[in-house]
Amino acid sequence: MSTEMMFWFIPFAAVVALLFAWHFFRELMKHDEGTDTMKKIALHVRKGAMSYLKQQYKIVTIVFVIMAIFFAILAYVFHLQNEWVPFAFLTGGFFSGLAGFLGMKTATYASARTANAARNSLNAGLRVAFRAGAVMGLVVVGLALLDISVWYIILDTFVDEADAKHKMIMITTTMLTFGMGASLQALFARVGGGIYTKAADVGADLVGKVEAGIPEDDPRNPATIADNVGDNVGDVAGMGADLYESYVGSILATAALGAAAFYTTGTADMQLKAVFAPMLIAALGIILSIIGIFLVRTKEGATMKQLLGSLGLGVNVSSILIAIGTFGIMYLLQIPNWQYISFAVVIGLIVGTVIGQGTEYYTSHAYKPTQNIAKSAETGPATVIISGIGTGMISTAISVGAIVVGIILSYLFAAKFDITNLSAGLYGVGIAAVGMLSTLGITLATDAYGPIADNAGGNAEMSKLGPEVRKRTDALDALGNTTAATGKGFAIGSAALTALALLASYIEEIKIGLLRVGQTTIEVGGQVIQTAEATIMDFMTYYEVHLMNPKVLVGIFLGSVMTFVFAGLTMNAVGRAAQKMVEEVRRQFREIKGILTGEGEPDYERCVEISTKGAQREMIFPSAVAVIMPIIVGIVLGVSGVMGLLVGGLASGFVLAVFMANSGGAWDNAKKYVEEGNFGGKGSDVHKATVVGDTVGDPFKDTSGPSLNILIKLMTMVSIVMAGLTGVYSLL
Amino acid sequence: MSTEMMFWFIPFAAVVALLFAWHFFRELMKHDEGTDTMKKIALHVRKGAMSYLKQQYKIVTIVFVIMAIFFAILAYVFHLQNEWVPFAFLTGGFFSGLAGFLGMKTATYASARTANAARNSLNAGLRVAFRAGAVMGLVVVGLALLDISVWYIILDTFVDEADAKHKMIMITTTMLTFGMGASLQALFARVGGGIYTKAADVGADLVGKVEAGIPEDDPRNPATIADNVGDNVGDVAGMGADLYESYVGSILATAALGAAAFYTTGTADMQLKAVFAPMLIAALGIILSIIGIFLVRTKEGATMKQLLGSLGLGVNVSSILIAIGTFGIMYLLQIPNWQYISFAVVIGLIVGTVIGQGTEYYTSHAYKPTQNIAKSAETGPATVIISGIGTGMISTAISVGAIVVGIILSYLFAAKFDITNLSAGLYGVGIAAVGMLSTLGITLATDAYGPIADNAGGNAEMSKLGPEVRKRTDALDALGNTTAATGKGFAIGSAALTALALLASYIEEIKIGLLRVGQTTIEVGGQVIQTAEATIMDFMTYYEVHLMNPKVLVGIFLGSVMTFVFAGLTMNAVGRAAQKMVEEVRRQFREIKGILTGEGEPDYERCVEISTKGAQREMIFPSAVAVIMPIIVGIVLGVSGVMGLLVGGLASGFVLAVFMANSGGAWDNAKKYVEEGNFGGKGSDVHKATVVGDTVGDPFKDTSGPSLNILIKLMTMVSIVMAGLTGVYSLL
Repeated sequence: MSTEMMFWFIPFAAVVALLFAWHFFRELMKHDEGTDTMKKIALHVRKGAMSYLKQQYKIVTIVFVIMAIFFAILAYVFHLQNEWVPFAFLTGGFFSGLAGFLGMKTATYASARTANAARNSLNAGLRVAFRAGAVMGLVVVGLALLDISVWYIILDTFVDEADAKHKMIMITTTMLTFGMGASLQALFARVGGGIYTKAADVGADLVGKVEAGIPEDDPRNPATIADNVGDNVGDVAGMGADLYESYVGSILATAALGAAAFYTTGTADMQLKAVFAPMLIAALGIILSIIGIFLVRTKEGATMKQLLGSLGLGVNVSSILIAIGTFGIMYLLQIPNWQYISFAVVIGLIVGTVIGQGTEYYTSHAYKPTQNIAKSAETGPATVIISGIGTGMISTAISVGAIVVGIILSYLFAAKFDITNLSAGLYGVGIAAVGMLSTLGITLATDAYGPIADNAGGNAEMSKLGPEVRKRTDALDALGNTTAATGKGFAIGSAALTALALLASYIEEIKIGLLRVGQTTIEVGGQVIQTAEATIMDFMTYYEVHLMNPKVLVGIFLGSVMTFVFAGLTMNAVGRAAQKMVEEVRRQFREIKGILTGEGEPDYERCVEISTKGAQREMIFPSAVAVIMPIIVGIVLGVSGVMGLLVGGLASGFVLAVFMANSGGAWDNAKKYVEEGNFGGKGSDVHKATVVGDTVGDPFKDTSGPSLNILIKLMTMVSIVMAGLTGVYSLL
Repeated sequence: MSTEMMFWFIPFAAVVALLFAWHFFRELMKHDEGTDTMKKIALHVRKGAMSYLKQQYKIVTIVFVIMAIFFAILAYVFHLQNEWVPFAFLTGGFFSGLAGFLGMKTATYASARTANAARNSLNAGLRVAFRAGAVMGLVVVGLALLDISVWYIILDTFVDEADAKHKMIMITTTMLTFGMGASLQALFARVGGGIYTKAADVGADLVGKVEAGIPEDDPRNPATIADNVGDNVGDVAGMGADLYESYVGSILATAALGAAAFYTTGTADMQLKAVFAPMLIAALGIILSIIGIFLVRTKEGATMKQLLGSLGLGVNVSSILIAIGTFGIMYLLQIPNWQYISFAVVIGLIVGTVIGQGTEYYTSHAYKPTQNIAKSAETGPATVIISGIGTGMISTAISVGAIVVGIILSYLFAAKFDITNLSAGLYGVGIAAVGMLSTLGITLATDAYGPIADNAGGNAEMSKLGPEVRKRTDALDALGNTTAATGKGFAIGSAALTALALLASYIEEIKIGLLRVGQTTIEVGGQVIQTAEATIMDFMTYYEVHLMNPKVLVGIFLGSVMTFVFAGLTMNAVGRAAQKMVEEVRRQFREIKGILTGEGEPDYERCVEISTKGAQREMIFPSAVAVIMPIIVGIVLGVSGVMGLLVGGLASGFVLAVFMANSGGAWDNAKKYVEEGNFGGKGSDVHKATVVGDTVGDPFKDTSGPSLNILIKLMTMVSIVMAGLTGVYSLL
């Protein structure tokens, strides 16, 4: 089969994904939303979620327009940038936003339907929730590959360059920049969504559970709708945008690395194969993810372990099929060293699995670490916090260890065990990232399933459905908590690998930047080299990107401190926004008569509005810092400083994100462990101490931790897009 | 004046420091310890502290003997190391241990005497406590410079090498390894001491304050003596060993960098001057610190601000005199570019001051950040933790920013604004570190003052001295809390600069290692270069220490995760040891009759023993990790991996340490702010919420945070000492 013909498998898979998403959505809508109360509550949540998204997209549109104009000026006035960038940037953002919108819309339609289906059977509930989640998963991967395919066709048609190999470099480096649009969209979705959901959650808990003594999801609590909306905007739209960015970023970075790897040493066809390989792996992953989705089912009265097994079956079968299929498709493609490249994909899949298992070990109350945190609650909230932080910090060893081993192995395989073969090795690391993310269609379905089940539980509680139904929705909800924790681990790990691949492709952008301003040669170690033919190693020497260069060292320090400051800003943002929510709920309890006896109707909209406004206001500053910092460092310190910044930010941010996500997850489940009757059970002092841990964990695991994923990718993306400016001109 | 003659100023200053330390100690002992109860309590604390130190030194001795044998085998059997290393290693450890012992002994003699002096006047109390602290400060700097002087004389006499410049390289790289002894001693002092003090503190608080409702430092609490002992072993001996290491490390690293900088381009005399310069700056600092010590005095009824002013006067006058004196001494030395080098010293002094001020802003309740944390307690302990963590994370920007600017400026000055002049620039960074630490004689006095005043307060409380005396000791104690917080900031900042200087000198050790195994040439970019004449830049190219090398990247990831795991291990260690303390105190309350009515005598010794054993047991694993990790990475990944590890560990560890120290300090003072009557005052729910923050902050600021200082220096030191093995042989 010719390489060009194989290309068409990529848009084909994208369309298949979107068709199945449409199919699952249609199937979902055939289900009934249940009683009038259920419908009413679902409507409240849906309206709240949409009003948030509307507000969010308004701001995002303004920012995107400004940025697009800025890029256009750089491109058309100063010729410091590719003229396609403004448009690529906009489509990246548009498709990411569209995926979030569709995914969230589906999720808000699904919660009441899941609760209603759970009135029939556990399996019915699981299927409705999971397939609604699958809509999100398939829309994300489908739109991503569609965007990639269309842009490839456009650029292949319109880029005016005689040399085929150089043309491919220009195509791939241009495509990379539309990751910037996805990245910026993801920033607002994750940071804004993260602040929204936790402001509502913490606010609702502090007044409702602690002060008024009413249970979670109680309709008398004015913040409860905002809390349910938050699950959708944070965990569905936010998570989706985050992984959309990783997915697109890893594929495009690997394509760019592939184009570079075969630029000087291979034929044009070999180069083309290397560019298509990551896209084909992703396309294969889509088809096999859909098969996995159909495997997810359960039986009545299933235990937690059996439920986990049901989801696990789907994901694991998909993974194994992808591992096998990769060898087939790489063989068909006849990519050079196809066996080695295929192994890199397998390594990526294994790394993803290890991170998932490790995260489960450290955050599930089936294991010692979380049980110990629960036990430490016997001496009060302070020791809960100490042991939760200690355990979360220690837990980072697993995820980072898995990534480190994955980097080394995928590099060595792709470089055919020649560690000096930088371009092939780094391509292998990119391929591993793509491999890890190739199951995204189904793994994102399990992620999005979580908040849907959570909302279904909330709906059942508020609608006062029978205990049998509550038991089923509780089981579905508990399952969602576990998948949420492992999903976060997966999101962070894939973000780290993606950022690394992006970092490697940054050099390619620098090269194009130099060529654009007419610098056709560079001097390396006394020798004059053609810029177009310079290797990564040459650029490392040219820009002195070594560890004793003060610009590199300072960059690394700045990258490291950036992640802490960013995490701190988002933590405090949640604290402030939650404070406002607390005041509003207290006001309603005070001013609206009969609210606690159930006779007065709380003003849900007001709480939704407060969370929305709080999130929008609080997300501006950290977001601005994330975008501006790489530009400033680039202008002052140049390429070596930027690379230091990115590596420092990646190394610290990755570890910090894992720590925060795992501590948060462990606190959450330590509380659940006590609620199951251990160490005194619900209502005891031990329980109260674990509630403190859980509340602290909320912004850890749902705001700051996940936002760091975006930070490390976005800083790299900004650097890539600005490479034409900062790679060519700098102060020091 | 000849350069050789100027050398004698260094041992002279060391002896002057020790004589004044002796003088202050004699002066202290002339004071009376007060009433019989006061004497009895002081005796309890002194015995507890000494029994801890005895236990500690036993373990340390075993570890040192094993390590010395290991180094001896490497040196004499495999010839992979300098034959002086085993001895240099032992003296470094011995002098550091001696300084800790003398400082702590003085501190335990001083507490009752301070309380007794406070019965006369505030000024008398301040003077006794501060001059006792000065004993520690002067013993540390005196012994450090003495050790350096003696070794210089020995090596200068016995190193058998005809070429004067090469001989100097060998002397300085050998001396560097005795920092390893200081480093290992510091590890045990900081980690063991940190676990001890917080196990006792947290344990005493949890049962005493929270469960039994008795005040702090109440003699009925069996853990109260252990708590007071902990202040001495953690904050005196631990802090002293930490800064001894930084002091020695920065001077020796800078000397090694100086020897390298003038090896190829300068004369032997220029090289000698560059080696002596950091030592002379330190010697000058000693003399001028002593002048500053004599300036510290106050008047009756002084406000907190006035008390801070009294200490600040001493430190600031010393700093300004050193800044001026440096220009004089560098002029006399006629070191090349003496004005530029002198500016690097000034930059170091300014950086130290900025870090101190920044730390004060973020941790003192005179300012908004800490007040906001106190306010967040209105919604319970969870929001206190959230806002404390958020604020601590944001606060890292100041310290890291100051260090970053300091690095850039000191580099640029010393390199005469030629950023490519690596060896001169890095020498300048080392000089800035030495400049920052040149005031150590007096800054360490203010640090050691804190726990002495704290213990004096405890003694006064337990001895039931009158309210007027309590008010004075409270004022002295509160002053100590502030100096402790800024002292920690200073310790971390200086550790970061020192680690950076050590990192730069690592290359020199690699060079010597290569020469030792007979590799006299290296190939760099196709050219053959004499190993002895290779520059830092050559080695960067030779070992491919650039940011796209997977070994470097993996090393950086590992360094980053190491710091989190290390912090997590020490956090959990405190949690476990505190748990044991809680159980023991509960047992005593239960089994010893009349303990709460004051009729029964608590078993203080048992609590001291539990803290001691807990600390000794818990410090082993994290310490072993810190020592072994750089060796494993060196053997597997080689020089580029090690440098990645060190830079990753430094960048993450520095920021993490600042975050933990500042969060901890801010929580402590937020509690104090409430206790002063804000937001409901003592005993209110708000107060209880801030107590949770304070308890969480204890291991943050006194165990994990400070231990990270050691980690980042020790990993570098281990790499330096093992350079002969890992620099020459590695797997990948």
